Amino acid sequence: MIGHIPEVQVGQVFSDRRELHDAGVHRGLQQGIGPQGASIVLSGGYVDDLDEGDSITYTGEGGRDLNTGRQIADQTFTRGNSALVRNHLEGNPIRVIRGHSLESSYAPEAGYKYDGLYRIDQYWQAQGRDGFKICRFQLRRLEDQEPLFSPDNAGPTTAGKLGNVSPGRSSSTVSRVVRSTAVGNEVKGLYDYTCQICGLKLETPGGPYAECCHIRPLGRPHNGPDTLDNVLCLCPNHHLLFDTHAMHLTDDLRVLETGEPLRTVPSHTIGMDHIRYHRGLGPS
Amino acid sequence: MIGHIPEVQVGQVFSDRRELHDAGVHRGLQQGIGPQGASIVLSGGYVDDLDEGDSITYTGEGGRDLNTGRQIADQTFTRGNSALVRNHLEGNPIRVIRGHSLESSYAPEAGYKYDGLYRIDQYWQAQGRDGFKICRFQLRRLEDQEPLFSPDNAGPTTAGKLGNVSPGRSSSTVSRVVRSTAVGNEVKGLYDYTCQICGLKLETPGGPYAECCHIRPLGRPHNGPDTLDNVLCLCPNHHLLFDTHAMHLTDDLRVLETGEPLRTVPSHTIGMDHIRYHRGLGPS
Repeated sequence: MIGHIPEVQVGQVFSDRRELHDAGVHRGLQQGIGPQGASIVLSGGYVDDLDEGDSITYTGEGGRDLNTGRQIADQTFTRGNSALVRNHLEGNPIRVIRGHSLESSYAPEAGYKYDGLYRIDQYWQAQGRDGFKICRFQLRRLEDQEPLFSPDNAGPTTAGKLGNVSPGRSSSTVSRVVRSTAVGNEVKGLYDYTCQICGLKLETPGGPYAECCHIRPLGRPHNGPDTLDNVLCLCPNHHLLFDTHAMHLTDDLRVLETGEPLRTVPSHTIGMDHIRYHRGLGPS
Repeated sequence: MIGHIPEVQVGQVFSDRRELHDAGVHRGLQQGIGPQGASIVLSGGYVDDLDEGDSITYTGEGGRDLNTGRQIADQTFTRGNSALVRNHLEGNPIRVIRGHSLESSYAPEAGYKYDGLYRIDQYWQAQGRDGFKICRFQLRRLEDQEPLFSPDNAGPTTAGKLGNVSPGRSSSTVSRVVRSTAVGNEVKGLYDYTCQICGLKLETPGGPYAECCHIRPLGRPHNGPDTLDNVLCLCPNHHLLFDTHAMHLTDDLRVLETGEPLRTVPSHTIGMDHIRYHRGLGPS
């Protein structure tokens, strides 16, 4: 399960890994990365981890000697690490749990504390302190959650506080906020992450990447539905061109502006009313 | 000037358009859309406008009879409308000012109120009430600003309040948060919005689109500089492939994975140390 667990509060403490498992917050009793990469437990096992509260640099799994805890082989983007990359590509949030053994001012004094949802901003590989390649993940806490409590400063962190912003001067440039939905995953599966307009399949070390594009836009004021007949599987370039009305579809499923046919599969019925609605939003 | 004006507070009221102009909040005394599309004044001139506080559906300029205020011709994506589209593509924030003549519970009783920064989520064309095509813009207020005050409900709106979120279930799918910087605009200008990897130039009704990609990533923990020698001009597809470590550059400026040469211009010196840093983050 991705996201918050119903009935579980941000800040809730569990006495041990068994309780954490039973509550569904983090499944399994040993691994730091939970099934599907939906959750991670920070427990101080990796010397390269860096916990700054709202920002975490997290080391992936694998290559560690069980007895000494030292890195004895390179980590690769497989298993849990690959699941975290996938969640980065899909924009899925990760549940973060801090354990009492973590050396951090945000760690609980005892047990395991659920600290809410984080997003994976970046991933990369690096040389770890023990001389082997490690997989690293930069996590950032989602906004609009209860602030973290840090015993050291005896108060919540600044995340979520109101204040002035100057986005015009921000040094960050592009961050995709992609959120996977059941429908999005379905349409990407139907086309195996291949763009329906250009046929391109973008391959990354974490697997293929595509975007789910709504034909009639979601939300106000168009209120398009989040249903399979209202979505396309597109590469980022064609998603942008479709959303900015550089491209539209004809009733016989061609790109109006180029005449190229849209790639389709029989099991995907595209709503003609959605296509016409989108076409109606374009420059005449 | 894009973004907040120094010394001007969100919620500040100006007695007339002249004061607004002199403060630099909205330049010009007549137009609803300010220079560069950096600000808009909502004053009730367009019957199709829809003001819900944090969310605004705004009608562009042009095609109106000066005497009757009725639409007598189609609006096009030119001048002020084109500037707003450009700010959508670049992710620039727009200053929003509400005038006393606006029929909305968020309008001030007198004068003109600066209500902070909004982002343009979408643009499209539609049939207006008078039977002509109008340009429309969906604006959403940026977070982390003082909440709007609405006299009707005698309290601030919910924007900025803390609360639980469930992004995993959100119906929104992809929203690009692109923020233009001086360096980003410079590199896009050098390459005329052409991707340095594939040579593609994405054309939209609002003009060309490209992204500024930092070679050594900005922010923690890589702390790459926001300087011209650390950026590339890329299409969204190649930006994604570069950031996810599907592609790297060699010392002789080729794509490591394909051998293709990077497009460069003499006036753009790319930092070799940044290229090596980025390559060091990839899978070995």
